[in-house]
Amino acid sequence: MKSETLRSYVDHADRFREGSSSPRHFLEECIASIEARDSQIGAFTHLNLARARDTADAATTRWKRGAPLSAIDGMPIGVKDIIETADMPTEEGSPLFTGRRTGRDAACIVALRDAGAALIGKTVTTEFAATHPGKTRNPLDLARTPGGSSSGSAAGVAAGMISAGLGTQVIGSTIRPASYCGCYGFKPTFGSLNRAGSFDHKSHSVLTTIAASLEECWIVAREISARAGGDSGHPGLLGPRSMPAATRPQRLAVLETAGWAKADPQARESLAAFIDRLRKGGIAVENRATNATIEEAETAIAQATRIAATINVWEDQWPLNTYSRDLDHSLLSGAMQRRLQERAAMTQEDYAEALIQRARTRETYDKLASQFSACLTLSATGAAPLGIEWTGDPTFAIPGSLLGVPALNLPLLQADGMPVGMQLLGFSTQDAEAMQIGRWICETSDASGF
Amino acid sequence: MKSETLRSYVDHADRFREGSSSPRHFLEECIASIEARDSQIGAFTHLNLARARDTADAATTRWKRGAPLSAIDGMPIGVKDIIETADMPTEEGSPLFTGRRTGRDAACIVALRDAGAALIGKTVTTEFAATHPGKTRNPLDLARTPGGSSSGSAAGVAAGMISAGLGTQVIGSTIRPASYCGCYGFKPTFGSLNRAGSFDHKSHSVLTTIAASLEECWIVAREISARAGGDSGHPGLLGPRSMPAATRPQRLAVLETAGWAKADPQARESLAAFIDRLRKGGIAVENRATNATIEEAETAIAQATRIAATINVWEDQWPLNTYSRDLDHSLLSGAMQRRLQERAAMTQEDYAEALIQRARTRETYDKLASQFSACLTLSATGAAPLGIEWTGDPTFAIPGSLLGVPALNLPLLQADGMPVGMQLLGFSTQDAEAMQIGRWICETSDASGF
Repeated sequence: MKSETLRSYVDHADRFREGSSSPRHFLEECIASIEARDSQIGAFTHLNLARARDTADAATTRWKRGAPLSAIDGMPIGVKDIIETADMPTEEGSPLFTGRRTGRDAACIVALRDAGAALIGKTVTTEFAATHPGKTRNPLDLARTPGGSSSGSAAGVAAGMISAGLGTQVIGSTIRPASYCGCYGFKPTFGSLNRAGSFDHKSHSVLTTIAASLEECWIVAREISARAGGDSGHPGLLGPRSMPAATRPQRLAVLETAGWAKADPQARESLAAFIDRLRKGGIAVENRATNATIEEAETAIAQATRIAATINVWEDQWPLNTYSRDLDHSLLSGAMQRRLQERAAMTQEDYAEALIQRARTRETYDKLASQFSACLTLSATGAAPLGIEWTGDPTFAIPGSLLGVPALNLPLLQADGMPVGMQLLGFSTQDAEAMQIGRWICETSDASGF
Repeated sequence: MKSETLRSYVDHADRFREGSSSPRHFLEECIASIEARDSQIGAFTHLNLARARDTADAATTRWKRGAPLSAIDGMPIGVKDIIETADMPTEEGSPLFTGRRTGRDAACIVALRDAGAALIGKTVTTEFAATHPGKTRNPLDLARTPGGSSSGSAAGVAAGMISAGLGTQVIGSTIRPASYCGCYGFKPTFGSLNRAGSFDHKSHSVLTTIAASLEECWIVAREISARAGGDSGHPGLLGPRSMPAATRPQRLAVLETAGWAKADPQARESLAAFIDRLRKGGIAVENRATNATIEEAETAIAQATRIAATINVWEDQWPLNTYSRDLDHSLLSGAMQRRLQERAAMTQEDYAEALIQRARTRETYDKLASQFSACLTLSATGAAPLGIEWTGDPTFAIPGSLLGVPALNLPLLQADGMPVGMQLLGFSTQDAEAMQIGRWICETSDASGF
């Protein structure tokens, strides 16, 4: 179930060329949404509308000339506020960094500017992209959380304030908010998008896109990788610059993950009904009861939360330890202070063991690649919870995070009158293939009304 | 050939315990060397002597109680100025960042403080740890370069101003200056020491130690890894906390590398004479003429400079591109501006290909591990060049950098009346084993006077 106010930019490309619309006009519609609703939603921490307008004007000229810098030339994009921007503060959702300006753009930001994107503003993140929530509310129901940690990017996309937002994910920070807000989300293979200049150094964290369409998730990511590459030592997301063609999957695996027991019955039924329709459409869909390799993978990923938590606690020691010592300790949330205490009880050997367990989990999951085109599961346990003090249960997103594989949120399910995402998990470095199947599923769903 | 003014801290541990000397007394001797010589040598960009004295006093008390925080409690250490420090500026050798204070400690700095180290000051680096030199002169001959990019750490150790200095290496930035200055140097396996908070993001760069003894190279590194771990996703340097025992090598490989043709005949003769003595001592030493696996490795690593340059140019795009655009472009050196131009001519596919070539080079080199305990070669083409406009030829250090294997500089050779290092290359993650053999070679050399 999609947010009804998604505002896709790529749908307008022909009109930008013809002159019946323009990037500037499109931007003004986004700004109108911000002005109408952001005082309530709180997707942004900072805006730079003047620069966005200048950028959109330049893009308008280029589209009319038939020479846009890229398919995202002029696209209004929001930037998760852990990513450095030369023209706007980078506050990381922490009162320690209110108003902090680093004076430089992150690698992905330089790339987006080179591609012509209109970077409207910085979007709300939880504190240091972890658990302590920001101010943002869910545009589809202001009484609910938008999810986190990429809260503002998801809310901004869902409310039509931006066509795409940059996010990150090390636990559930993209798949969960995209699920709760009814957006598309793309967490690429680990290492696919250059994180330099993003305050995000953990070993299975990745830069992500949340967008009004699956196509925009792909092309924004791909325009970044083509210019800035991936993380150091990784070739970066490869594949076509335009959206990969839809491909009918040969065979799909449905995963329960450790989340199944906690999932809302409505969400489970919504997924089950979707799977039934896929089967009726002739797709072979297997699960742990029918396939031993899936059962083996389920057993392995059932430990994902524990392994990921161990790794994250170790890797979070820095910079929390210097902030705790050299800055105002009282401005760290209780959650962050507790994380430092947990870290103090860990040894280097504990961490080394967790890395081995992660590697084994990946090997086990990878066996699915020879039998299945992709895996399907829920993106979240159900609808966005009520209240904004908690960004929701990330359990369904954790296996994809730990595995480092591509994960898509497809806004196709529902529970409690709110969106719930279907999550597609692919295989490492096969991001374009995951997109092809995700596209086929979305198009088939649209065509048949499921 | 060692610098005669090396000032080893660990040699004094018994006297610190007995009270016949103290960390504070030791520190004052270091400070006296700084006051006497640093106006000419220029090893430091910033000093925090007040804090170092407080730290040494606290260490003095702990040693007397018989309860030092670690073997490096109170050790005077210099910090390469690309590594963030909460109490001192971090300028990266660039006028773009004169006086810049980041307000936080890098992960390795927090670890060193927790181990009790007395961080005296920030040591000179070339611009962004690349090629444009700083002000530092070689303490052994002020007319010569100390090498780079870890210029100040090597010069400070060589002049007895510090017992150890932190460095980094992505090309030749530790092995070369350690060679030129007659110090010990340790470039651990890639990923061994946490680089978080160091402006050093390249994919085979690593945090290193330069010290007055091989033991200090090891224990400083190991105290960091025990507390801060390695880079995200790496277990970090493991092994004993104290210096590994000397181990007689079974069999050694001598490598020429692409540098051989450029090496000073005196340096080549000095190495050849050393190898002869090892052989006379009963050690089997092979080379490309006598062993096909070595010949294969030599052929592979002959391409190291080209492959490393391609990788580094791609990975250097950021942050140079944002500095060039968002800061004062004219304050970037010509070398850095040219590097950006080279990057503009590269594609993501060029980089991906270079990564494949690097992986293949590593596989070929790794075959040596089943036949040899370690490899020996020169650390530099000869003595430090005259003049400080050029930090010297890094060719001999590049294979170890590209391979990501442990590399040691052992100050055992000479040319032109100046030190030249013997470089010991080990095998990935076998850092303690490389130290064992390096220690045996040094002890044997000392005992027999070679």
